[in-house]
Amino acid sequence: MVELGDEKVIYAFSADAEPAMTVPSGTTVRVRTKDCFGNQVQSADDELDEIDWDRINPATGPIFVEGAQPGGALKVTIEAIELDAQTASCTGKDEGVCGDRLDAWSTKICAIEDDHLVWDDGLSIPLAPMIGVIGVAPAGAPVNCGTPGSHGGNMDNTAIGAGATLYFPVAVPGALFGLGDMHAVMGDGEVSVSGAEVAGWATVTLTAMPDLAVPNPLIETDTHFGIIVSGDSLDAAADAAVHQMVDVLHEGTGRGADELVMLLSLTADVQVCQMVDPQKTVRFMVPKYVLEGIGFTLPA
Amino acid sequence: MVELGDEKVIYAFSADAEPAMTVPSGTTVRVRTKDCFGNQVQSADDELDEIDWDRINPATGPIFVEGAQPGGALKVTIEAIELDAQTASCTGKDEGVCGDRLDAWSTKICAIEDDHLVWDDGLSIPLAPMIGVIGVAPAGAPVNCGTPGSHGGNMDNTAIGAGATLYFPVAVPGALFGLGDMHAVMGDGEVSVSGAEVAGWATVTLTAMPDLAVPNPLIETDTHFGIIVSGDSLDAAADAAVHQMVDVLHEGTGRGADELVMLLSLTADVQVCQMVDPQKTVRFMVPKYVLEGIGFTLPA
Repeated sequence: MVELGDEKVIYAFSADAEPAMTVPSGTTVRVRTKDCFGNQVQSADDELDEIDWDRINPATGPIFVEGAQPGGALKVTIEAIELDAQTASCTGKDEGVCGDRLDAWSTKICAIEDDHLVWDDGLSIPLAPMIGVIGVAPAGAPVNCGTPGSHGGNMDNTAIGAGATLYFPVAVPGALFGLGDMHAVMGDGEVSVSGAEVAGWATVTLTAMPDLAVPNPLIETDTHFGIIVSGDSLDAAADAAVHQMVDVLHEGTGRGADELVMLLSLTADVQVCQMVDPQKTVRFMVPKYVLEGIGFTLPA
Repeated sequence: MVELGDEKVIYAFSADAEPAMTVPSGTTVRVRTKDCFGNQVQSADDELDEIDWDRINPATGPIFVEGAQPGGALKVTIEAIELDAQTASCTGKDEGVCGDRLDAWSTKICAIEDDHLVWDDGLSIPLAPMIGVIGVAPAGAPVNCGTPGSHGGNMDNTAIGAGATLYFPVAVPGALFGLGDMHAVMGDGEVSVSGAEVAGWATVTLTAMPDLAVPNPLIETDTHFGIIVSGDSLDAAADAAVHQMVDVLHEGTGRGADELVMLLSLTADVQVCQMVDPQKTVRFMVPKYVLEGIGFTLPA
């Protein structure tokens, strides 16, 4: 295992970014990440209208993975997530779902004690660590780290925790992988525009899969296999996610779209990742027992 | 407990419907329900383009609940769901998420054996019984039973299973409650346009709560309290659900919208019910431990 500090960060996933590190395929990297505020909100006195907004949404990297090729995939296994001891949350005017009823920024700092985030004396919240920003360089123009897309990026997907494996479509040699924006806990939707934002360490194993073509990030968890799609609306993202999963399963099993759609309608879940970023993100999650039952082989 | 057979069904929730039964507040009723096809699809030979489409989406009822008054709520506790032994699923041209790629109706009949639905020799699906259509008469024009709204109706919400309690806004004296469209199992989204459609019995306890004003159906499960909102899009439904839950919690605790939104962003989930009906339906679910922590008292 190698380590990468947070001295070199990107604010956009870009084909032109200079690698912070180059690793052979199959390398496990322990990566230090700043929080989504660039670690600028450390106390209740740190006002969001006074921070440097050019330092928002940093992702550590990029990491050049040898063997990753355009047209193939980068497999990313989340081995572990380690959190610092304090989180920051925010909402504000015109931010998130309820920004229409707010006049100013609000922030809240919380301590992490044992396996909980301490909201106040009366309420502690169980941790569910996850990675908000994770992805590879896109084809074409750079995409800022606050925006999700087919390259990954700011997907804010609660399923991206320790034990999950992701498959990203690679658009440039080496993939140029980066990650950041960890959350100690977040609800599906991320309705305020933030999770419990926290710096920390993410340990990931990066493997080039030059022969695996994927249209959008795929995810495998202990129990499910899914596709993650971002779009102009939740409806558009969900529609595309369902269509693409039907394609993936049709190609993998030869079963007809009609049967697959009826089966997925009974067993698979359209789930909201976030509805507050410049593109909205949805995941469509299929239980693994269903895949086994229809003879679909997961990527490996 | 009293019983109500399925001889009297409605195809629209309507203030003008003649009650099938009148009960005192607090009555438990075991209700027979037809499946969403009006029990017209019993074998693989029953083609969907040959059935009587005027008999689609029947809800048994309505039941007049004494004491239910406009401006108040009807509390509905799902005591039990009993399923018949066979389900029907469908998808078709221009139906559901993938109707653009289909040329005709497809149906699939499945047997229920023990606690599973038998898809084929290689795949059995664990049951998760739920009620698709459940609601009260709306104010104003009748709403057909295929369409969800603030009166309930075709919400296709996987959280509406045994043990759940719903609170509907009452618009007419007696509420005029009805239910049908049970599913042996369904995924969030209901992407094909059907769950595992099944006839059966639902046992519900119906209680008038004349002093409880609710803007949309509320739901309480073992672990969560939520609001169910339908709209022109998933985005619109989700936006309204979050705003209305913030209102409910603000009114119940006096805590500021900014704090509530930040807290819900960490703990509450925007979840898709269905994206295939004339209005789309979303639920916003808050864990009960959070409500306890902020001193919010659930309806009782």
